[in-house]
Amino acid sequence: MERKRRICFPLTSRAYYGRTQLLIQKLHDHPAVDLQLMLGGSILLDKYSRHIADDIERGGFAISTSYFNVIEGGNHVAMAKTACLTALEFTNGFHQIDPDIVIVCGDRFEQLAIAMTAAYLNKTIAHIEGGDVSGSIDESVRHAITKLSHIHFVTNADAQRRVLAMGEDPNYVFNTGSLDLEVAASVRTTLTADRINSYGVGHAVDITRPFLTVIQHPVTTETDNRAHLETTMRAIAELNMPTIWFWPNPDAGTGEMSESLRHFREHHAAITEKIRFITNVPVDEFIALLRATSCLVGNSSAGIKECSYLGTPVVDVGARQHGRLRGEHVVNVPYDAPAIAGGIRAQLRHGRYSASTLYYKPDASRAIVDVLTSIELYTQKRFCDPVESVYAAATKPAQ
Amino acid sequence: MERKRRICFPLTSRAYYGRTQLLIQKLHDHPAVDLQLMLGGSILLDKYSRHIADDIERGGFAISTSYFNVIEGGNHVAMAKTACLTALEFTNGFHQIDPDIVIVCGDRFEQLAIAMTAAYLNKTIAHIEGGDVSGSIDESVRHAITKLSHIHFVTNADAQRRVLAMGEDPNYVFNTGSLDLEVAASVRTTLTADRINSYGVGHAVDITRPFLTVIQHPVTTETDNRAHLETTMRAIAELNMPTIWFWPNPDAGTGEMSESLRHFREHHAAITEKIRFITNVPVDEFIALLRATSCLVGNSSAGIKECSYLGTPVVDVGARQHGRLRGEHVVNVPYDAPAIAGGIRAQLRHGRYSASTLYYKPDASRAIVDVLTSIELYTQKRFCDPVESVYAAATKPAQ
Amino acid sequence: MERKRRICFPLTSRAYYGRTQLLIQKLHDHPAVDLQLMLGGSILLDKYSRHIADDIERGGFAISTSYFNVIEGGNHVAMAKTACLTALEFTNGFHQIDPDIVIVCGDRFEQLAIAMTAAYLNKTIAHIEGGDVSGSIDESVRHAITKLSHIHFVTNADAQRRVLAMGEDPNYVFNTGSLDLEVAASVRTTLTADRINSYGVGHAVDITRPFLTVIQHPVTTETDNRAHLETTMRAIAELNMPTIWFWPNPDAGTGEMSESLRHFREHHAAITEKIRFITNVPVDEFIALLRATSCLVGNSSAGIKECSYLGTPVVDVGARQHGRLRGEHVVNVPYDAPAIAGGIRAQLRHGRYSASTLYYKPDASRAIVDVLTSIELYTQKRFCDPVESVYAAATKPAQ
Amino acid sequence: MERKRRICFPLTSRAYYGRTQLLIQKLHDHPAVDLQLMLGGSILLDKYSRHIADDIERGGFAISTSYFNVIEGGNHVAMAKTACLTALEFTNGFHQIDPDIVIVCGDRFEQLAIAMTAAYLNKTIAHIEGGDVSGSIDESVRHAITKLSHIHFVTNADAQRRVLAMGEDPNYVFNTGSLDLEVAASVRTTLTADRINSYGVGHAVDITRPFLTVIQHPVTTETDNRAHLETTMRAIAELNMPTIWFWPNPDAGTGEMSESLRHFREHHAAITEKIRFITNVPVDEFIALLRATSCLVGNSSAGIKECSYLGTPVVDVGARQHGRLRGEHVVNVPYDAPAIAGGIRAQLRHGRYSASTLYYKPDASRAIVDVLTSIELYTQKRFCDPVESVYAAATKPAQ
Repeated sequence: MERKRRICFPLTSRAYYGRTQLLIQKLHDHPAVDLQLMLGGSILLDKYSRHIADDIERGGFAISTSYFNVIEGGNHVAMAKTACLTALEFTNGFHQIDPDIVIVCGDRFEQLAIAMTAAYLNKTIAHIEGGDVSGSIDESVRHAITKLSHIHFVTNADAQRRVLAMGEDPNYVFNTGSLDLEVAASVRTTLTADRINSYGVGHAVDITRPFLTVIQHPVTTETDNRAHLETTMRAIAELNMPTIWFWPNPDAGTGEMSESLRHFREHHAAITEKIRFITNVPVDEFIALLRATSCLVGNSSAGIKECSYLGTPVVDVGARQHGRLRGEHVVNVPYDAPAIAGGIRAQLRHGRYSASTLYYKPDASRAIVDVLTSIELYTQKRFCDPVESVYAAATKPAQ
Repeated sequence: MERKRRICFPLTSRAYYGRTQLLIQKLHDHPAVDLQLMLGGSILLDKYSRHIADDIERGGFAISTSYFNVIEGGNHVAMAKTACLTALEFTNGFHQIDPDIVIVCGDRFEQLAIAMTAAYLNKTIAHIEGGDVSGSIDESVRHAITKLSHIHFVTNADAQRRVLAMGEDPNYVFNTGSLDLEVAASVRTTLTADRINSYGVGHAVDITRPFLTVIQHPVTTETDNRAHLETTMRAIAELNMPTIWFWPNPDAGTGEMSESLRHFREHHAAITEKIRFITNVPVDEFIALLRATSCLVGNSSAGIKECSYLGTPVVDVGARQHGRLRGEHVVNVPYDAPAIAGGIRAQLRHGRYSASTLYYKPDASRAIVDVLTSIELYTQKRFCDPVESVYAAATKPAQ
Repeated sequence: MERKRRICFPLTSRAYYGRTQLLIQKLHDHPAVDLQLMLGGSILLDKYSRHIADDIERGGFAISTSYFNVIEGGNHVAMAKTACLTALEFTNGFHQIDPDIVIVCGDRFEQLAIAMTAAYLNKTIAHIEGGDVSGSIDESVRHAITKLSHIHFVTNADAQRRVLAMGEDPNYVFNTGSLDLEVAASVRTTLTADRINSYGVGHAVDITRPFLTVIQHPVTTETDNRAHLETTMRAIAELNMPTIWFWPNPDAGTGEMSESLRHFREHHAAITEKIRFITNVPVDEFIALLRATSCLVGNSSAGIKECSYLGTPVVDVGARQHGRLRGEHVVNVPYDAPAIAGGIRAQLRHGRYSASTLYYKPDASRAIVDVLTSIELYTQKRFCDPVESVYAAATKPAQ
Repeated sequence: MERKRRICFPLTSRAYYGRTQLLIQKLHDHPAVDLQLMLGGSILLDKYSRHIADDIERGGFAISTSYFNVIEGGNHVAMAKTACLTALEFTNGFHQIDPDIVIVCGDRFEQLAIAMTAAYLNKTIAHIEGGDVSGSIDESVRHAITKLSHIHFVTNADAQRRVLAMGEDPNYVFNTGSLDLEVAASVRTTLTADRINSYGVGHAVDITRPFLTVIQHPVTTETDNRAHLETTMRAIAELNMPTIWFWPNPDAGTGEMSESLRHFREHHAAITEKIRFITNVPVDEFIALLRATSCLVGNSSAGIKECSYLGTPVVDVGARQHGRLRGEHVVNVPYDAPAIAGGIRAQLRHGRYSASTLYYKPDASRAIVDVLTSIELYTQKRFCDPVESVYAAATKPAQ
C-alpha cells in the first residue's frame, strides 16, 4: 500500500473516547495509517468531560478540528438541532481533511448525523457496535447507521445476525467483541476512597464497605424521566446505603433530571445524606469503581456490557436497555420503587457473578485495525439478500 | 377519534409533489386529518419548479412554512450541507406545528435528514417507497430511512420482503403499489406539439412523428458524470432523431452536466439541432410525454416505474437504477455510445410493450390514507426478528 | 391607517423581557398594532429564566415561534455561533410572519445578529438604548446595531448626541428616557425575607439588616474573568456582611466564573457562609432588592441605570461599564480587593443618594408606542451629515 | 517583532480578489506576515468565477479552508441566510487558525457577517473601503462594519470624514486611496476582439469600433429589479450599438433579472442581436474593456471608481450609487429609457474624460501593508468624540 490510509475518528462524547482508547492508540501507532481525530459535541464541554481535549492533545494525537455544537435545552428539539449542526460542521471538516474511512461508533444521535454526511461525501464508513437492540431512540439510530455503513464491527453473535439480516455484505461484517470490555479487561487501577471522594459533591463514601452505584440516563422516547429518576431515588433512600450517583448524560430529558437531583440535594438533605454525586471519572477509575461496587443500579449500557465481564451485579431499570443480549448478572425491573429496592436486595444477597464472554473477545482493537488497514474499500452499497447469508445457516435444522 | 390527526408532509422536490398529489388531495379532504404541508429544498427554486408553491397555495392547501435551504455548488459538499440545513430548519418547523405523523418519501438525500430529525422529536414516521434497491447514494438513504420509520408503504413485493428482512414490524408494512403509477393511470392529458414546444429552448419537436426522450441525472457516487452525459449525447447524435432532453436534477454532479449541455448547445450546434432542452413540465404532461415518446433513454426511475405501466420502451443507462425490480420493457446498457445507440434501435424496432402491474395497484392513495387515519401510532421501535415474519414463508419449500 | 402595523419583538433574554414589559403591554393593547413576540436565546433556558415563556403565554401574548439556539461552551466561539444560529433562525421567522417593524434592544451579541438579518430582509428596525458607551464587545455591538437601524430610542442626552454624530437622521432619533427606569419607578413590591430566601442556595439573608448585593458578569473582551471574580469574592469575604450574589449571565467567560463560585461553595464554606447565591428573580422583586440593599457591587448596568433613579450606592468594578454616563451614586474601582472593599465601606458610610433623572423620563413606553404607530416607515438609509444636526449646536459657543 | 502576524483574508467574491490582488501578493511576500486566505460565498461557484480557487492555489497562496455557503433563491431570505451560514462557518475557521487580524472588505452583506463573528472572537478587524455612501443595503452594511472594525483604510477624503464622525479613533483611520484603482493603473493588458468574444454567448462585438458596456446589478432594497433591467434594455435597443452586457451579480433580485435577460435572448432575438452576454472576465481584461468602451451604462461601482481614473464616460442608472463621491465623468439618470438613451448619447458626444485622482493614490497596497505590519493592535473599542477629531477642523472658520 503506497499512500497511508487516512482514517478519521470523530469523537463526540467522553464515553466514546474512554472505550476506544486502545483502538485509537493502535491506529495512531500504525505505519500505514494517518489518523485524524475530530472533536465535537459534549466531549468539548467541561460539564461532561474535564479537559478531555487537553488530555488527547497531550497524548500526541493530531486533532484536525474542534466544533462546539451542543445546543442547550436538554430537550428533543435541542438534541435534534445539535445533531444537525454537528452534521453541518463535520461536512466541512471531512471536506477539509478528505479521509478514506470515517469511523462511527455506537448509537448516539450525533453519530447518525455524522454517518449521514460522511455517506453523502462518498466516504467509506466503518461502524463499531452495530446490530444491538435497545430501547430509546438509540434503537432506531443504531440500525440507521448500519444501513449507511460499509464495514461493521459487532460485539456479539446476536448483533452479527441482525446486521446480516438487514442486508449487509457478509464479507464486511466482523464480530470482534467489545472494545469497552477490552479496555475493562486491561485496567489495573485500584480505586481509593481519597480518589473517588475528590470528585463531585456530597457524602464521602467509604469504599471499603458495601456501596451502590447509580447511573440513570434520560430515555429520550419517554416523557416522564423526572418521575422515573425520583422512583429510583426513593428506592435508594429506602436501602440507606452509601451510594455513588452519576449525573445523567446530556440527552433530551437531562434538564429535568438534573433539576430533580439538585432539588433533592437542597431540600431533602436527609434522603441524600449518604450519596455522593459525581459528573464523571476517568475510564480506568470507572472500571475500578464497577469492580468495587456491590451493585450497579440504573440504565447504563455499562451494566449490560462491562459488568458482564466484571461480574458485577446489576439492577437494570426500565426500558432503555430493552432487548439487549444480557448475562445472568442482570435483573431487569420496572419503574417501581419497591421493585427496584427488591432487585437490589436480591443482588446484594447473591454477590458477584463469574465473568461472561458474551461481549468479550481478546484483542478486539487489534482485529479492527487489521481490517481497517487491509480490507478493500468501497462506497456503493448493495442490499445483500440475507436468505443466503444468515438464514441459510439459521434455517439449516429445518432441512 | 376525538382530535384530528396532524399529518405533516414535507415537500422538497417537484417530483414528489407530482407523484403524491392524489394522496395529498385525499388527506386534505379527510375529515379526521389536519394536513400540514412544509416546503423546502429544490421545490422552492424556479430553476427546478415553476411557481410550484403558488400552485399548491392556489390548491387550497395550508403551507405551514417554506425554507430556502439549497446550498449552491452542485457537488457532494453542497448536497450534504443542504441536507443538514434542511434538517435544522425542519426541526424548528416540526417543533412549531407538532405533527402526529411525518410522511417521508422515497430516497432523496434531504428526506433522510428530515426523517432523522423527526425521529429525534419522537414523531411517528410514515415512509413511502421503502425497500427498493438502486445504485447511487439513494440505496443507502432509502434503507436508513426505513430503519427510522414506523409505518411503511412499499410499492412491490420485492421491496416488502426487504423491509421485513431489515427487522420492521410486519403489522406496519403495507404493499400499496406505487403512487406514481396511480397518478400515471389517472392522467387523461393529450400532449400537443404547441404545448411541449412552449417549454425550454432549442429545436421544435414534431410529436406526431417518432421522437426520443432523454432524462439523465447525476449519479452521486460516480465521478465522471460529465463523460457519461457526453456518451449519451454521442449516441443520440448518431441516431439523428427529434429528441426531448430534460436538464439533470440538482444532485451533486449537476453543475458539470449542465455546463456540458450548454457547451454542446453553444459550440456544437449541429449535434443538438434536433434536440429540445426542457427543465420540467407539469406531471400530467410528463405522463402524456412518456406515452407519446418512442423510447425513454437515461437513468430516471420513471423508466423503471411509470414506463412499466405505460408500456414505453426504455434504455436504462449505467448503474443508477441497478438492482431494481424491472419489467421486460427495460434494456440496461453500460456507459458506451454504441451500446446505447444499439439499445435504442432495438427498442424502436420492438415498439411499445403491454402494461405491467409490477409496481401498480389500483387506489394506492386511498389505501395509504386508510392506514394513516386508523392505525395505532407508536414511536419506540423494536427489531422484529425476520425469521418468523418473512423467512418463515421464504424457506417453506425447504421443509 | 388601514392595516395594522405588524411589530415583531424578538426576546432573547429574561432581562430584556423584564425591562420592556410596559412597552410590550402597551403594544399588545394598541388597536393599530399586531404584536408578534419571537423567543430565542437564553430566555428559553431554565437556567437563566424560570418558565418565562409560560409567563408570557399566560399574559395573553402571541408567541409566533421559539428557537432553541444557545450553543454550550461559555466561550467566544460558542457565543459567536449562538449569534449566527439565532440570525439564521430568525430569518425564517421574519420570512414567515413578515413584520413591518422589528424592535431590537440594547447591546447583546445576538441582537446584532437579529438586526443584521432584519436589515437584509428590508425590515424597518427600531433600536432601543442606542448611543451609550461601555466596555466589552457591547460597545461595538451597540453602535453597529445603530448603523443598521432606522428608528432610535435613546435613554439620555449623551447617547442622543452620539447617535446623531454617527450620521443618523435627526427626525428618527428620540430621547425617551429608559424603559428600565420606567419599570423601576412603577414597582410597588416590597421585598420579604421569605421570598428572597426561597430562591437559590446558601445562607438565609436577613434583609431587615444591612446587606450587600453582587452582580458580576463576564467581560467578553477580557481573559481573566475568573481572577476578577475571585478578587471581588475576597473583598466581600473581608467585609463579612450578609450578601445576595447573582450568578453571572451566560456570556463568554461564564463557565470559569460559575465554576469558581461552585468551588468556593464546596471547598471554602467559611468564605461563603454569609452569602446566598441566586440565579435570578422576577423584575419587580429585583427592583425591590435594589431598593433594599445597602450597596450594589459588580459590573451590572443596573448599577449605572436603575440605581441612579433608586439612589442605591454602587461600587462599579472594572471596565465593563467604562465611559457610560453615570450619576454621583457610582464609585468605580479597579480589579483590586482592597479597592473594592474600600469602595464598599465608603458607600456604606454615605448611605442612599437622592434620585437622579439622568436616564429617567416619565412615560417612556408611551412615547415609544406613539412613534412606532405613527411615524412614516422607511428602509433605505442615508448618512446624514452630523455637522448640521448635532455639531451646529455643539459649536455654537464658538461663534 | 518576534512572531509573525497572522493575517486572515476572507475572500467571498471574485471581485474582491480582483481588486485586492496587489495587497494579497504583498502580504504573502512580507517576511513578518503569515497570510491565511479563507474562501467562501460566490467565489467558489463556477457561475460567477471560473476556477478562481484553482488560480489562487496556483499563485502559491495558502488557502486554510473553503466553505460552500451560498443558499439558492436569489431573494432576500436566501441572501440573509447565506450571510448567517457564512458567519457560522467562518467562526469555526477563525477558531481553527486563530488570526491576529481579519481583513474585511467593502460593503457586501456576507462581509458584515464575517466582521460580526470576528468581533465576537476578539480579533482585530481591518476594514478596507469604509465611509463611502451608496444606495441599497450596502449603505447600512458598510457603516455597521465600520463600527465593528479597529483599523480603517478609506479611499477618499469624504469617507475619512464620515468614519471619524462615527466615533472611530483618528490614529487608526488611513486614507490610502483605492486598491481597485491601483490595480487599474497597473494594468497593461490590451483587449482583443478574439479574447472578449471567447467569453459568454451572443453577438461577436467588433471592439475596434465604438461599443457600449452594461453592468446592472440588483438593488436589494428595491422590488422592481426586473422592470429596471428591462428599461435599460429598451434604451440599449434604441441606440442599436454593439454592446457587452454583464450578467448581474448574485444579490437578492438576481433571479428575475437573469430570467428576464434569458427571455430577451430566446424570444426577442432582434433586440439582442448586437449584444454579447458575459458572466465575467479576468480583472486585467475588465480594466482593458473599461478603457476601450465608449460608455459604461448601469449601476456598477466601477463606473464611479475605476472609470474616474480611466476617464471612461459613465451613465449611472438609478439609486444604487446614490450619494457617492463622483467625478464629472458620471451622468446619473433615473429608471427611464429615454433618459438613459439621452445620457448615453450625451456621453458619446463628449468622449473620454481626463483622469481624476478622487479615489486614487499611488501605492495604496504598500501603505496598507505598512500599517498592518507595524501598528499596535487592540480589540476593545471606545467611541472617540468626533468634535475634537474631525469637527475641530470642520468648524475652524467659525472661530
